[in-house]
Amino acid sequence: MNTDDFLYLLGMAGTVAFAVTAVLAVIPKGIDLLGASVMGIITSVGGGTIRDVILDVPVFWSTDLNYIWVALVSSIIAFYGNRFMARKNIYSLMLYLDAVGVSMFVIQGAEKTIEHNFGMPIGPVVLGVITAIGGGLIRDVLSDSTTLLLKKDIYAVPLTVGAVLYTLLIDWLPEHATIISGGCSLLIFFIRASAIYWQLQVPQWMLIRGKKGDL
Amino acid sequence: MNTDDFLYLLGMAGTVAFAVTAVLAVIPKGIDLLGASVMGIITSVGGGTIRDVILDVPVFWSTDLNYIWVALVSSIIAFYGNRFMARKNIYSLMLYLDAVGVSMFVIQGAEKTIEHNFGMPIGPVVLGVITAIGGGLIRDVLSDSTTLLLKKDIYAVPLTVGAVLYTLLIDWLPEHATIISGGCSLLIFFIRASAIYWQLQVPQWMLIRGKKGDL
Amino acid sequence: MNTDDFLYLLGMAGTVAFAVTAVLAVIPKGIDLLGASVMGIITSVGGGTIRDVILDVPVFWSTDLNYIWVALVSSIIAFYGNRFMARKNIYSLMLYLDAVGVSMFVIQGAEKTIEHNFGMPIGPVVLGVITAIGGGLIRDVLSDSTTLLLKKDIYAVPLTVGAVLYTLLIDWLPEHATIISGGCSLLIFFIRASAIYWQLQVPQWMLIRGKKGDL
Repeated sequence: MNTDDFLYLLGMAGTVAFAVTAVLAVIPKGIDLLGASVMGIITSVGGGTIRDVILDVPVFWSTDLNYIWVALVSSIIAFYGNRFMARKNIYSLMLYLDAVGVSMFVIQGAEKTIEHNFGMPIGPVVLGVITAIGGGLIRDVLSDSTTLLLKKDIYAVPLTVGAVLYTLLIDWLPEHATIISGGCSLLIFFIRASAIYWQLQVPQWMLIRGKKGDL
Repeated sequence: MNTDDFLYLLGMAGTVAFAVTAVLAVIPKGIDLLGASVMGIITSVGGGTIRDVILDVPVFWSTDLNYIWVALVSSIIAFYGNRFMARKNIYSLMLYLDAVGVSMFVIQGAEKTIEHNFGMPIGPVVLGVITAIGGGLIRDVLSDSTTLLLKKDIYAVPLTVGAVLYTLLIDWLPEHATIISGGCSLLIFFIRASAIYWQLQVPQWMLIRGKKGDL
Repeated sequence: MNTDDFLYLLGMAGTVAFAVTAVLAVIPKGIDLLGASVMGIITSVGGGTIRDVILDVPVFWSTDLNYIWVALVSSIIAFYGNRFMARKNIYSLMLYLDAVGVSMFVIQGAEKTIEHNFGMPIGPVVLGVITAIGGGLIRDVLSDSTTLLLKKDIYAVPLTVGAVLYTLLIDWLPEHATIISGGCSLLIFFIRASAIYWQLQVPQWMLIRGKKGDL
């Protein structure tokens, strides 16, 4: 298995996590199999779809349907296996896979944006972040949940920092593209994974708590 | 009147129903004439617009403004005639017209996707379903209602089944395109209409009830 | 400073207002710096982005990143200066700047649509209104607020009226494009500003109050 295959598999693991966490998020409200599948698929491919539409390039899943198939099968498994999936350790695994997904997708989104020389230098950051969180925002809106932007755990911060770092480094040292993209993804993953593991919150100086005390 | 004219009229009937049901959905929350018109138009053309943007083809209503005019006039009539429109039998009629709309639009969406050879074979199903329910999802989100994906009546199921059937049959028997597309639309309509008439719910094995018991 | 520079500055003032009002809208729910910046940027550029995607032209901010930078810096200032910004007179100023923004953006959106000869004559009105309110709708949806379409103050009405007037006049007197576009923007601004100042509501004949009496 070479590096590309490995990255592809990681991307699919992220796709699984996006679909599963989406289905588990709507199940407490009650949903049918196909509604759940629609939610799972939209969440998985939504961010990249918005990116590609804004870049005006063919939507990524139209040329590689594995993303849709994997999201569909994961949604169905999550639907019928929701009790199993909602177990603490399995759900935890999904959160870490979600972290794998977002750390890869944000960098891939930034990379694709740079390839198309779109809105340099801030375009890659904006579209990278949209790639990673777009699907999750759609999921939150459709399932009438508080959006991930308003939650207290560290989510958008490492993504944005990683995308900025990637865009700066790739401009400075373009000959080390592979190392930079791998390194930035790993960095984001470790910050996000630490945030999950130790339930870290955003530092006080960059957080405003809500009036209801729920944040 | 030939077949095309008849189908066109049915499409317009669906457009009317989409706009009217959207306006009636927001009126209990209070809205002004233009807000209601915006809701009606977005709901009517939203799904097809998302499809065309993803397909990267000109948005359908830009070349046939009748869709916008019909949605606008229907919205205004629904706004001022909301007491009449909300009457049980009239609202019922709108639900059946909505069923006419979704059954046609899902197949038209799949057809257009096949014409552009986009993401075969699952692309037509995904974009067909988005064509049919995209506008309704936007309506639910903007009017802060529970989205149709989370409701207990049979809505997404016949659409998806019909789109899958259509895509399979058209691949197998391309010479019978007209019969297949008509047949699938009719099938979807009859399932959806039966669901409205007998208030059918999704079979138990493909439904998870919410914790609050409201589904 | 020539007219173009002046209009550009006004557009930037509108961008500031869009970002600041978005950040102030989510702060009571609690949010972190980057979440707030994402909200500010999406609100500022969301409407124009949807317009450009539907028109199938390069997204405006990809060729002029000042829109993103201004939205980002305004969001950060609004985040840290939220107590100051939420002061009655400062917030009031932001509302008027928002009025400046929407009155310019609706006409600019209509103008760009006419330039691309898209869905004449109703396309410019639809896309003009989307340009002006699209970002605000996304903000309302993501921050789980009642959307501006359902609020009782005069917002969509002057925008729509202005866009219709602009499209009619420009077709009738194309040689006076500058005066017409300036005049329509001013007209919209004055109606909207009056609505803010005197807290005007939509006339009774075009308003349906909600059952809860909150509209």
